[in-house]
Amino acid sequence: MSARNVVLMAEKPCKNKSFLQKTAPDRLHKHVLDHFVTEAGDSIANLTLAYRVFGRPNPARDNIVLVFHALTGDANCAGYRGPDGSVAGWWEELFQPGGALDTAKFCVICPNHPLSCYGSSGPISFAVGANEPLGSDFPPFSSRDLARVHGELLRALGIETLFCAIGGSLGGMVALEWALLQPLPTKRCAVLAAPAAGSAQAIAFNHIQKRCFDLDPHFKGGRYYGGPKPKLALSLARQVAMVTYRSPAEFSERFGRETAFSLEKDDRYFEMQSYLDHQGEKLLLRFDPNCYLKLLNVLNEHDIARNRPDLLEMIRKIRTEMLFVGIDSDILYTAEEVERTCRLFSEHGASARYECLHSKYGHDGFLIEFERLGTILHKFLA
Amino acid sequence: MSARNVVLMAEKPCKNKSFLQKTAPDRLHKHVLDHFVTEAGDSIANLTLAYRVFGRPNPARDNIVLVFHALTGDANCAGYRGPDGSVAGWWEELFQPGGALDTAKFCVICPNHPLSCYGSSGPISFAVGANEPLGSDFPPFSSRDLARVHGELLRALGIETLFCAIGGSLGGMVALEWALLQPLPTKRCAVLAAPAAGSAQAIAFNHIQKRCFDLDPHFKGGRYYGGPKPKLALSLARQVAMVTYRSPAEFSERFGRETAFSLEKDDRYFEMQSYLDHQGEKLLLRFDPNCYLKLLNVLNEHDIARNRPDLLEMIRKIRTEMLFVGIDSDILYTAEEVERTCRLFSEHGASARYECLHSKYGHDGFLIEFERLGTILHKFLA
Repeated sequence: MSARNVVLMAEKPCKNKSFLQKTAPDRLHKHVLDHFVTEAGDSIANLTLAYRVFGRPNPARDNIVLVFHALTGDANCAGYRGPDGSVAGWWEELFQPGGALDTAKFCVICPNHPLSCYGSSGPISFAVGANEPLGSDFPPFSSRDLARVHGELLRALGIETLFCAIGGSLGGMVALEWALLQPLPTKRCAVLAAPAAGSAQAIAFNHIQKRCFDLDPHFKGGRYYGGPKPKLALSLARQVAMVTYRSPAEFSERFGRETAFSLEKDDRYFEMQSYLDHQGEKLLLRFDPNCYLKLLNVLNEHDIARNRPDLLEMIRKIRTEMLFVGIDSDILYTAEEVERTCRLFSEHGASARYECLHSKYGHDGFLIEFERLGTILHKFLA
Repeated sequence: MSARNVVLMAEKPCKNKSFLQKTAPDRLHKHVLDHFVTEAGDSIANLTLAYRVFGRPNPARDNIVLVFHALTGDANCAGYRGPDGSVAGWWEELFQPGGALDTAKFCVICPNHPLSCYGSSGPISFAVGANEPLGSDFPPFSSRDLARVHGELLRALGIETLFCAIGGSLGGMVALEWALLQPLPTKRCAVLAAPAAGSAQAIAFNHIQKRCFDLDPHFKGGRYYGGPKPKLALSLARQVAMVTYRSPAEFSERFGRETAFSLEKDDRYFEMQSYLDHQGEKLLLRFDPNCYLKLLNVLNEHDIARNRPDLLEMIRKIRTEMLFVGIDSDILYTAEEVERTCRLFSEHGASARYECLHSKYGHDGFLIEFERLGTILHKFLA
């Protein structure tokens, strides 16, 4: 397939490069890149990047931390004040005074990834002159593209060096590519619960999720805007993912074989099922199916060795101190895979250290084990 | 829901109790039970039980081995001569001369479970006077019902004692219930890759499989006979199951990140995906969706402790020598769960021994590791 040329409807840009001093802390900022060309050669004009900023840069501007969110995450790693009061961010606890990401010390920038649906351009964006969202025609991004595009954002904001880049899961893949590509000189980089490449097993679970959409008559190959949303497919895909995000031990302890209610005598509805259905419903209220599918492809395509005969040379050149964190109960991107990736880096000259995050919660441990993760990150960022 | 009274259309019964001497070795026999009442209180008249027999009973009739098949298995644990030549059975290698189930030594009986679609009564059976199969109205069976109904079959065949009952996965659950219920006095019992009760994680994977059918417009709540079959749902459900039947290590080694072909630049089709789609297609050609769903419920409901305040007393009374085999790479019914079940039995007075079957193939190891499994079973049956 030949390269695409997409001109997006431009959002109101933020041209003020001194924004870091001026904006309210709980505002979602938007920056519009005039032009971005993806790894696959697609050209996008007017690409919006949404981001949030927590804390202030110090005079030396050497306290800036870039945080990358996971698959269905957003720019709210710390909280915001909504119309109904305070809403906690997904890493809120790390932002406590004295915490690993204490804003008295660090200026944390958290961009929303393109392809997502929380402010940055993606499948729900409109091309100029179009009367429905681009949907599956939005160009694909790789984890490399995400690292590069966020580098362009930071440069546009006048940031020249980074103290640290951090991310978990998809965010960890982007952090790993950030370390390899060094869009800005970066002192430290923490890769949490992310592998060097998606495994066959991870591809298998993503495949099942994608196939859910083929089953849903409302999906219509991604052209569902204006009609009913393919809700059941998105819900079921999320349920498949949830099983890989948690652990058998947690499910046993939390749900066991408890019955929610009995539909018929041969069709008991277990608490485990009720949990999964509930998780599916929660996502369909907040996420777009085409965005979800595009992001799944980022996971599948992630592979630091792809088209890189010079990978080991790239690793040798890294001057960034790297931390790899694997979660011992993670069945999606196992601790073993993360440790193996760390070894690849350290054995080829990079400064790379591995830490195991102990958790019963599986892959989601990096979004739950705030105390243990906080201790690990605090030490790394000290 | 109140108890059902189902009168099935009677198949031609096999009244000859001396069948064991007379029938051809590769014939599927059928026995019709006049009447069977399930654990849930449903009453079924004319329940057909299909079974195969391999080898001959010895004069003392103390060499009879009962083999229970797994979820989508059938009575063909050893091969048969089809119109196109020899077809291997699913445990063929164990039947080799000198093998664990050598028919020179043992008389092996392998029944098809009711609910299945390979000869015994199930959702594709017709009630008297009906013009479409019973479908989801076929009464549910539990693993206890399956043990009981096969006990009635053996008694009807004139068998009074059993040398050994063996089964893997669903078959292992039935073997476990067989040991507890002792439908016939049984010398030994081997439970392979089966737990005391389905775990929350197993319930989660079954839930996702069931939800696939809700997505398929052809399913129509199970009333699809006469219309198109809900193929995509059955295929996708099988794919979910396949991921749990194998292991991440096997998938990595076998498929890794190999590409089958590229649909578009952001939608590469990996070999892993091609394998899953192929497995899904294979099942939909050979299995009925309602049968599949009913059998999933057997897995979910399996729990040796359910409604049994006297479970430990039952275990204490067991005189059968028991063997539990867990597979070290099994992610569906883990070796740890199997070992824990073995401990429950041995700590409460049963003669129970645990063996670990080493395999990279995961749960399916009991259908693949013939040499290692053969060694374990050979020793146990000696």
